[in-house]
Amino acid sequence: MEVKSFAHRLRARQSQAKSVLCVGLDPDLERLPPSFQGETSVENAIVDFNREIIAATAQFACAFKLNFAFYEVHGAPGWNALEKTLELIPAEVLTIADGKRGDIGNTARFYAKSVFDSLGFDACTVAPYMGTDAIGPFLERRDKGAFLLCRTSNASADDLQLLGGGDNSREEPLYERVARLSNAWNDEYPGTLGLVVGATRPEDLRRVRSISPTLPFLVPGVGAQGGDPRATVNAAQTPEGIVLVNSSRSILYAESGPDFAEAAGEAADSLRRKLSLETTDSDS
Amino acid sequence: MEVKSFAHRLRARQSQAKSVLCVGLDPDLERLPPSFQGETSVENAIVDFNREIIAATAQFACAFKLNFAFYEVHGAPGWNALEKTLELIPAEVLTIADGKRGDIGNTARFYAKSVFDSLGFDACTVAPYMGTDAIGPFLERRDKGAFLLCRTSNASADDLQLLGGGDNSREEPLYERVARLSNAWNDEYPGTLGLVVGATRPEDLRRVRSISPTLPFLVPGVGAQGGDPRATVNAAQTPEGIVLVNSSRSILYAESGPDFAEAAGEAADSLRRKLSLETTDSDS
Repeated sequence: MEVKSFAHRLRARQSQAKSVLCVGLDPDLERLPPSFQGETSVENAIVDFNREIIAATAQFACAFKLNFAFYEVHGAPGWNALEKTLELIPAEVLTIADGKRGDIGNTARFYAKSVFDSLGFDACTVAPYMGTDAIGPFLERRDKGAFLLCRTSNASADDLQLLGGGDNSREEPLYERVARLSNAWNDEYPGTLGLVVGATRPEDLRRVRSISPTLPFLVPGVGAQGGDPRATVNAAQTPEGIVLVNSSRSILYAESGPDFAEAAGEAADSLRRKLSLETTDSDS
Repeated sequence: MEVKSFAHRLRARQSQAKSVLCVGLDPDLERLPPSFQGETSVENAIVDFNREIIAATAQFACAFKLNFAFYEVHGAPGWNALEKTLELIPAEVLTIADGKRGDIGNTARFYAKSVFDSLGFDACTVAPYMGTDAIGPFLERRDKGAFLLCRTSNASADDLQLLGGGDNSREEPLYERVARLSNAWNDEYPGTLGLVVGATRPEDLRRVRSISPTLPFLVPGVGAQGGDPRATVNAAQTPEGIVLVNSSRSILYAESGPDFAEAAGEAADSLRRKLSLETTDSDS
């Protein structure tokens, strides 16, 4: 049987769930509802919180993204919590390892093995600074995806990402070069490449989409970081080029009381609808 | 009592050990001596191997660097092995967390907490793509250091790192911009910044040293990657600007038989001497 590419799998899940929403499972202990503060272990607190969030939001999500910083900070118990969280995610919802790893080829192979084989994620984020060597090992499995950092959502993104695009330059800025190289890598390993492009600069989303018409975009920066959901979709989504819009804090911490999970589900569904290209949602 | 900066601590250890050698503790299970292959757990195999390597090489090392990929690939047991390895390193030898993390400020704070507080490393490596936000949280502790990826040792380093330095450009290439920004960050947080500059391009080492005369350089790429030890030191070390030269595979796997630790110690001492600016080593 032919193995389906990551891009194919992502598109299938988006159709099934009628959703481009990616829910970020980034548990910050200090922000968990009070009922979790008294748990016997950090591992249990995180897993129990994630369990309720996953149950409330999975039907509205095309993917869950786990940012490793929020797990690593707790050492081995955090790593255990990450593994147990993965087991709670329904098989039809895709999973993204947000570790932004990047290292020389020999080492990148271990990172790829870690996220795809040991942990079993469907996709991961990768930092592009070191070039092809650092990325290749993440592209060798047709059914797995790698989202390369391209144009990030943070305030200091311009420190380096605009370099090369100065007046009279015959070069392109760094983030455009990353997009262009990614096209070439995706030609070599079809359906495995995606780009991380922040929601906070819709004009740059549009620019990257014009360079990379078919790569999936993972878009952080709506919600707590200020990006507008509809402007994001309008700028980046086309029939050929799909998006995943990530939200973490505005869903996880929609409410801090006992109804946090219900509120998270409502926030997820509400954002899913805002991200939908239909102006009204008529599913029933 | 005034807290000593990371740069000060590094210089003190280099004087004490008469060494600029950094030993990379990157245990690849498939390359461990046969006696470790039968251990009851991955965690024990790694910790037992590292214990012997540390005992044999610590006196010749100014620092040990642990590349996280080789631990993460084993999940929570790997993380436990990393923590236990840290406990085996003598207090006077500095420790570097080689994870090349980099994320938006809110998230980078968790990574900084992870490497400096939870794990207790003296320094770490950081990926610069996202700019100031991603780096700031690693600079706030005067006694801790952050080595920013600048000019890497791998074959595909040119894919992005030369961007901006084209003909007729009034800009500088990406890696030079990283060096220049790092000078500014180090002015703000004195003694906390360093740069990762590969040994495989001595002319670029020289170039980065001219831009950043005082930042410590962490230099990978000698040994298995082909960089020449003395050319590295000649290009990058000055009275104001110190270097740490990392070697992993050529020390860890100097021999695969029962004498692996003795061979590792000899390889470490031999490399330490080659890196020494004195042509003969007269310690006794």
